[in-house]
Amino acid sequence: MQYFPDAHRNLDIAEINRAVESAFADHGRALVQMPPKMYVTLPTGDFRTMPAYLPSLSIAGVKVVNVHPDNPKKGLPTVMALTIILDIATGQPTAILNATRLTNLRTGAAGAIAAKYLSPKKDVVIGLIGTGQQARAQVMAIAQELRLREVRVWSRNPVNAESFAAGLHMPECHSVSIEQACDCDLLVTTTPSRSPIVKSEWIHEGTHINAIGADAPGKEELDPHILKRSTVFVDDPVQAVHSGEVNVPITTGVFTRDEIAGTLGEVVIGMKRRRSPEEITVFDSTGLAIQDLAIAKIAMQHGTSIDLSFP
Amino acid sequence: MQYFPDAHRNLDIAEINRAVESAFADHGRALVQMPPKMYVTLPTGDFRTMPAYLPSLSIAGVKVVNVHPDNPKKGLPTVMALTIILDIATGQPTAILNATRLTNLRTGAAGAIAAKYLSPKKDVVIGLIGTGQQARAQVMAIAQELRLREVRVWSRNPVNAESFAAGLHMPECHSVSIEQACDCDLLVTTTPSRSPIVKSEWIHEGTHINAIGADAPGKEELDPHILKRSTVFVDDPVQAVHSGEVNVPITTGVFTRDEIAGTLGEVVIGMKRRRSPEEITVFDSTGLAIQDLAIAKIAMQHGTSIDLSFP
Repeated sequence: MQYFPDAHRNLDIAEINRAVESAFADHGRALVQMPPKMYVTLPTGDFRTMPAYLPSLSIAGVKVVNVHPDNPKKGLPTVMALTIILDIATGQPTAILNATRLTNLRTGAAGAIAAKYLSPKKDVVIGLIGTGQQARAQVMAIAQELRLREVRVWSRNPVNAESFAAGLHMPECHSVSIEQACDCDLLVTTTPSRSPIVKSEWIHEGTHINAIGADAPGKEELDPHILKRSTVFVDDPVQAVHSGEVNVPITTGVFTRDEIAGTLGEVVIGMKRRRSPEEITVFDSTGLAIQDLAIAKIAMQHGTSIDLSFP
Repeated sequence: MQYFPDAHRNLDIAEINRAVESAFADHGRALVQMPPKMYVTLPTGDFRTMPAYLPSLSIAGVKVVNVHPDNPKKGLPTVMALTIILDIATGQPTAILNATRLTNLRTGAAGAIAAKYLSPKKDVVIGLIGTGQQARAQVMAIAQELRLREVRVWSRNPVNAESFAAGLHMPECHSVSIEQACDCDLLVTTTPSRSPIVKSEWIHEGTHINAIGADAPGKEELDPHILKRSTVFVDDPVQAVHSGEVNVPITTGVFTRDEIAGTLGEVVIGMKRRRSPEEITVFDSTGLAIQDLAIAKIAMQHGTSIDLSFP
């Protein structure tokens, strides 16, 4: 059994995007096994358990990932993760990966694939709501798929937005007001908000929105009226209803499960699509275990590991 | 983060029994978080993912365990397992345990606790149907709780029964016919059978049965008529209905979920009990993630580990 302590090193973002795109295609064709992720609540956070089997890559395993918002005060990441990989033929654990940074990378890749298929154009103004690690992962992955003509960055704390914009080392990257950030072709929201921060009147026709932040019951970033105006795609319906951007509006009855237009997998295989340049589209990302397996496969090919005795 | 490659070494079975008993008591009082285990099917086996949080021990984590019946031909155990332990306060993975042998030990402990509370007497003739590793773990754990006056061993292959009986190094331990094995105070079934092998007419009044073998949909060891004559306790109702001894009879309609008398946790806390010496009682064991956490706690206290860098 191998342990990969730095599984995120030396990875090519374009290669990750392609692997995650392929995993979504398998998902769209119902070729994967993936029970919905399970949540266990701890006193100051939670952890999620995500098993899956992706036959096309001959890979099976489980990611275990926590969310503890107070961790940065303790010098630890909010989100940490391990992925266990099992041999398909024998069930034997063959690898354990430190998946902490892989988690951002694979979520970035899902956002990039959503943007590739649902963005109204290939040459875009991108707006960012939130400036954490996930915002950076989204921009880096999307930049492989689309040309980013301008990056408009908003954070509740303007210092964070300035610092994030400077750190991107991209031309035309600015800290702006939230209204200005929302005036874009491609909006990416990555905050842990528990009440809508993006107002419907700020979103013009033709925008695509990657709603990344909501990943637990009670979380939401978008005015539910935006969902009513939009064609809403999710990564997985069961997970999205439980903990995605649509979870609160569905609980309150503002939005219904039947209004979900389809999955990103269905978009990737051409079953579903953006129907006009004026349509507003939303990708509601909760994170799929198959994304974790797809990136683990690449990380094991490129990474260095130490040997652990087992069984 | 620590890795415990030999987590089963130097463990005291009585200590394990007490820890598992306490975990069942917490379960009976609804003081644990434990989603039902999730199954993922692989081409020649499956794996199960079992997360839980046991507040009384301040322990949280996930066991990942496979079942691949053809593994012995490849020189590997049928069942292999890893347990990941997370820090409650931060969600950080703090330990990974090789839980392959711990899985037998904790299942043995559950059987021992069931026998302690549900056996018709303290001085028993025990009958064993099946002679695999689980049979041995059951006997060793039960011997801590009850006096085993006689051990009657049956296996489909009499050579296995002879060898098992000789290996126990207990007095009054014999290979017998299946009818003779069933003529006992405490019957323990540990086979992977997919059709009933224990007939109802072989089971006399007052017997307690630990039904251990059925742990997946389609598996069953007991003539369903035995369940109809018995007071049936389960470890967890959702898991038992899905994959325990009751799963097939419930699917076929011979037995109903409402006929389950209660859980072992409820028995341990005194809410439920054997009501008379003549009653037949059954404990339907599927294996709970809280058992894995309880034994992991002990294994981490006694075991040696190596340090892995994380995060």
